[in-house]
Amino acid sequence: MAPIITLLTDFGTADGYVAQIKGVLLGLVADVALVDVTHDIPPQDIETARLVLERYWQRFPPGTVHFVVVDPGVGSPRAALAVSAGHHLFVGPDNGVLSPALLQPDARAVSLAVSAGASRTFHGRDVFAPAAAALAMGTPVGQLGSAYPSPCVRRTPEPIAGAAGEIRGEIISIDRFGNAITNLTGPRRGWTLWVGALRLPVVDTYTDVPPGDMLAMTESSGRIEIAVREGSAARRLGLTRGTVVVLRRSDSETVASHG
Amino acid sequence: MAPIITLLTDFGTADGYVAQIKGVLLGLVADVALVDVTHDIPPQDIETARLVLERYWQRFPPGTVHFVVVDPGVGSPRAALAVSAGHHLFVGPDNGVLSPALLQPDARAVSLAVSAGASRTFHGRDVFAPAAAALAMGTPVGQLGSAYPSPCVRRTPEPIAGAAGEIRGEIISIDRFGNAITNLTGPRRGWTLWVGALRLPVVDTYTDVPPGDMLAMTESSGRIEIAVREGSAARRLGLTRGTVVVLRRSDSETVASHG
Amino acid sequence: MAPIITLLTDFGTADGYVAQIKGVLLGLVADVALVDVTHDIPPQDIETARLVLERYWQRFPPGTVHFVVVDPGVGSPRAALAVSAGHHLFVGPDNGVLSPALLQPDARAVSLAVSAGASRTFHGRDVFAPAAAALAMGTPVGQLGSAYPSPCVRRTPEPIAGAAGEIRGEIISIDRFGNAITNLTGPRRGWTLWVGALRLPVVDTYTDVPPGDMLAMTESSGRIEIAVREGSAARRLGLTRGTVVVLRRSDSETVASHG
Repeated sequence: MAPIITLLTDFGTADGYVAQIKGVLLGLVADVALVDVTHDIPPQDIETARLVLERYWQRFPPGTVHFVVVDPGVGSPRAALAVSAGHHLFVGPDNGVLSPALLQPDARAVSLAVSAGASRTFHGRDVFAPAAAALAMGTPVGQLGSAYPSPCVRRTPEPIAGAAGEIRGEIISIDRFGNAITNLTGPRRGWTLWVGALRLPVVDTYTDVPPGDMLAMTESSGRIEIAVREGSAARRLGLTRGTVVVLRRSDSETVASHG
Repeated sequence: MAPIITLLTDFGTADGYVAQIKGVLLGLVADVALVDVTHDIPPQDIETARLVLERYWQRFPPGTVHFVVVDPGVGSPRAALAVSAGHHLFVGPDNGVLSPALLQPDARAVSLAVSAGASRTFHGRDVFAPAAAALAMGTPVGQLGSAYPSPCVRRTPEPIAGAAGEIRGEIISIDRFGNAITNLTGPRRGWTLWVGALRLPVVDTYTDVPPGDMLAMTESSGRIEIAVREGSAARRLGLTRGTVVVLRRSDSETVASHG
Repeated sequence: MAPIITLLTDFGTADGYVAQIKGVLLGLVADVALVDVTHDIPPQDIETARLVLERYWQRFPPGTVHFVVVDPGVGSPRAALAVSAGHHLFVGPDNGVLSPALLQPDARAVSLAVSAGASRTFHGRDVFAPAAAALAMGTPVGQLGSAYPSPCVRRTPEPIAGAAGEIRGEIISIDRFGNAITNLTGPRRGWTLWVGALRLPVVDTYTDVPPGDMLAMTESSGRIEIAVREGSAARRLGLTRGTVVVLRRSDSETVASHG
């Protein structure tokens, strides 16, 4: 089977930077399958890239190489990493964007050498693409650099247990549909999600409420999200990353009305 | 030849939902060619997705699998479909988005089973991707589910014949260039298109008028469109989906001036 | 190795025009690798497309076919070109968008025949895609049309040498990060870049200044750019294409402070 390289960046496509990366990869690896994840990460938003990577990497076949470059520190002494974890391979800067890989129990990271001819501002093309190509062709991670024992790791904030069994969390991302995704996990039937004074029933799916109504439910990666059926919860409720939410057990009448 | 799967969704790319779908497909089908049509359908805009599908599907080789998921009803009891039609294959929800396939004389639809483990909110990943993979590997449509005799079909509104040979139509979509595409078809040399009190000559191509001028002509799929050469007709004229337009035979002087 | 066709257009993806082109290509060339460069060139912006093409084409392997269609003159008598240059192949309209290829010393251009059935408004699908497919399958450029000796060529404006060793240039593009790229080339350590009364040190990389500070440096294609670390120089300074900039040798104190 042809090797697979997925691409996640904040470069956009319109300037031709991603095209340069693709050219380098196709010049080095015969018949590689290049898979665009997205190039529309907000510029330099490491946190968003980390959460997106967490969502998709395990859906790809073992052996896939994930190129993950959101790199505000390019040109500084920050390390350039290659990582093997969970039978997948990763390249990206040492700024936490690779945390979903680094948090795997079998994660192994090396620091890539930066060749003398590499651009100071475009390691995506000159450092990470050649490393991704080498991994796709079967070079072991250990041959690409020296062991790097303490890479930068970012973690999703943990929910906090409160008084009377309540659980306090926060919104960690807003998706294209305006759904607000929290750090709380489900299923949570029989609970109610509070956003300030507003209370939202935890239902099973969008169509459990009429169009235009607000709801909370467990989304496809197992997290509780706030949605408006056929609308944007983020816009309607003014939700942003960091907005506090609280899960409380519903009183029995409320449960009954959504059972 | 490697199997081909085209992808048309309203998921955007930035959240990693499409990446999850691609991962599932690449894990199931060796050496499949994944072709992004677009992920920028306006959220939940079934009508736009239907018109886009109509434009491209027949340009692909026979045997191509078209993954078409714009699915505001996900999680409701709406059926999940697989369709064979015109030597192509399709998967998508039963909400009319697959109408260009369903209107083919040889169309055959089945209702896909939804496995117990499928997410209630992301059938793109858990129902439609596995079905598309099976079709790409040669599984006949009939083996993927039970016959579904009455799928939801949406049709482009028909033009209406009026008094004195005029034909009344409407705008059905606006493209990236601000061209407004109608439900009227061409060629229509010797006719004039009216938008309210404004009359537009029907010409052959953009460069038949000077830059900045308005025109009507037959676009590349055979429909009459309203355009501004090197500009946006939608913005200039305030056109939107549903705006009424009328074709009338030009008087002879007008024809002469654009012949 | 499978043939490669890169795609650069201003069609966007949402309307299905690019999908039609991909369908035609996949129907004609078995197992071709289609590589999206971008479809987000601003509508009809030949100049931007030319600069993007210049940035990436040489990064691809020899034999790559580059499909470059930004074509405000479609339907007019402008020629449709196929070009071989530097062991790469190109198709696109004769409006200067292919200049990076045409300026190669070994460039050879032919004028493509337009078949009777071709749409007057969509040569991307009906003229350029079949030509690109033929080139990808090994047909020599010379067999696709008649020699075209004087194609339209656009050049990046040359910097102008001024009094006292200063060099006057201008901004030629703004990228996604708000970096403003000039027609001046580097490296230029020991020089200062002036934008009106504002002077910017020429440093080596973004992280040579604190976050939020302005700087000038040599970007990854060898041009001097103006940037704000982790911010947008274009927005901060109101820079646009054509803004004049001047390079002057720094006085010795300034050099020392950035050495």
